[in-house]
Amino acid sequence: MPPIILINGLSEQSLPVADRGLAYGHGLFETICLNQAKPVAWQAHIERLKAGAQRLAIPLPDNIEQLLLEDLSTLLSTRSASTVRQVLKITLTRGCGGRGYAVDAETPINRIVQLSAFPVYPDQPADNGITVRLCQSRLAIAPHLAGIKHLNRLEQVLARAEWSTTAIREGLVLDTEGYLVEGTMSNLFWCRDGVLYTPQLDRCGVKGIVREQVVRLAQQQGIPLQQGLFTAAALNDADEVFVCNSIIAIWPVIKCIAIDQSQFEWSVGPITRCLQSLLSAEGIS
Amino acid sequence: MPPIILINGLSEQSLPVADRGLAYGHGLFETICLNQAKPVAWQAHIERLKAGAQRLAIPLPDNIEQLLLEDLSTLLSTRSASTVRQVLKITLTRGCGGRGYAVDAETPINRIVQLSAFPVYPDQPADNGITVRLCQSRLAIAPHLAGIKHLNRLEQVLARAEWSTTAIREGLVLDTEGYLVEGTMSNLFWCRDGVLYTPQLDRCGVKGIVREQVVRLAQQQGIPLQQGLFTAAALNDADEVFVCNSIIAIWPVIKCIAIDQSQFEWSVGPITRCLQSLLSAEGIS
Repeated sequence: MPPIILINGLSEQSLPVADRGLAYGHGLFETICLNQAKPVAWQAHIERLKAGAQRLAIPLPDNIEQLLLEDLSTLLSTRSASTVRQVLKITLTRGCGGRGYAVDAETPINRIVQLSAFPVYPDQPADNGITVRLCQSRLAIAPHLAGIKHLNRLEQVLARAEWSTTAIREGLVLDTEGYLVEGTMSNLFWCRDGVLYTPQLDRCGVKGIVREQVVRLAQQQGIPLQQGLFTAAALNDADEVFVCNSIIAIWPVIKCIAIDQSQFEWSVGPITRCLQSLLSAEGIS
Repeated sequence: MPPIILINGLSEQSLPVADRGLAYGHGLFETICLNQAKPVAWQAHIERLKAGAQRLAIPLPDNIEQLLLEDLSTLLSTRSASTVRQVLKITLTRGCGGRGYAVDAETPINRIVQLSAFPVYPDQPADNGITVRLCQSRLAIAPHLAGIKHLNRLEQVLARAEWSTTAIREGLVLDTEGYLVEGTMSNLFWCRDGVLYTPQLDRCGVKGIVREQVVRLAQQQGIPLQQGLFTAAALNDADEVFVCNSIIAIWPVIKCIAIDQSQFEWSVGPITRCLQSLLSAEGIS
């Protein structure tokens, strides 16, 4: 089932070559889980879009949220209601431009909304855990672009290109100073002695919506959480490791293959299982 | 005169939304001056494309150069031969993909070739010199992406968005450690006591084709050249400053407005004029 697409509310498959999303990556995206036709954590996704738009000087129409909901409604009307889960991808670009980096203030943004089938994971990684790789590719320290989900994603592309075996489901990436940041498509957490850890993301990385939810749930459960700069050595001593995003929810990590091929292993632990259950109760699983 | 466009050799205006150039900036571009229908420094542009493609794992067809020349020939056949100069933009992307950063090895690249009118500069900046701004936006240190002309250009977009007055023609950008790198759309040189200086570009920045030509011409003229890490203070003591790219050739810089609004001024000097003449003799002016 190929994705169905609306561009600025109209059924289209393609975007003008002059779009600044293509030319410069001048745009943002969100990948959202649709559960029974309802976008999960909608408000959080919209807020991240708005924050990103402000950072990238992309002027959103005041009614952007309503426009996106109308797009979603149009797309859903073409699909069978029986599909439990689907993937909604929203891309907003700074619109079409001429040569050169300067923006014409009058140019409207382009709004692309796509509905795709939910991925199937027959090996049940959420239950069984996954093997990850420690990537050689590094993330540049770019505080001005950190946290938001912009279209300049070459670093993720390069990191993901480091392996092709399906036995590895995710890659963990460090920044150019050697600190853990995230997975290529997910955020990273680990536990040790009952404390939950996750890299701070004010220098690089994407602040995932599920990451925020995990932080909130941990607080509610009284699980202490530390955000900071940690090297990969922190994983050596971890009791539990997991990655998360809006589509996979939480995948426990049971093995990590380092660049020198040495391996770390973990069991799926109680804090991971507890957070999976709590997310599941909110429709995220 | 809007640009005329070929996508994979066919007359098209738009690219599928699934293109990885749009989704991730997974692609490269070249902006080339056409002089009397001849692409200036063609071989150097092709070499940079090939080097970039290797870095980004974009598998170019063996006959890519021939394909691009055929595209150019097709585009030129639709235009009056009397146009002295035109702008040729080539974009190569990793082609269309599904969700996720992983690439399907079988997916062909997308090849976009555009012909546009040459920009007109009535104020003759090449003769009279320009005013530049020292930008607040910084470039991240990303050696893995340095030098090549990839589609992840948000840093340039943000730097260029810092000013809107037409009195400022270019912005100079520093890296996150405070060293001079380049202009938003050009490379930077300055002279002091007969020595030519330019930032090294192995940590960030684009290695411009005209930059390489200036380096070669300086060598041929016996002008000593130093590439290195320099702070903006190096410009204080400069006798001459200029920026260059394939479309503007060399623009002398006669004034720089710093972030605190303090100003530096320079005259257009003999080394700048000499290099302009030498480039002009090679069809670059």
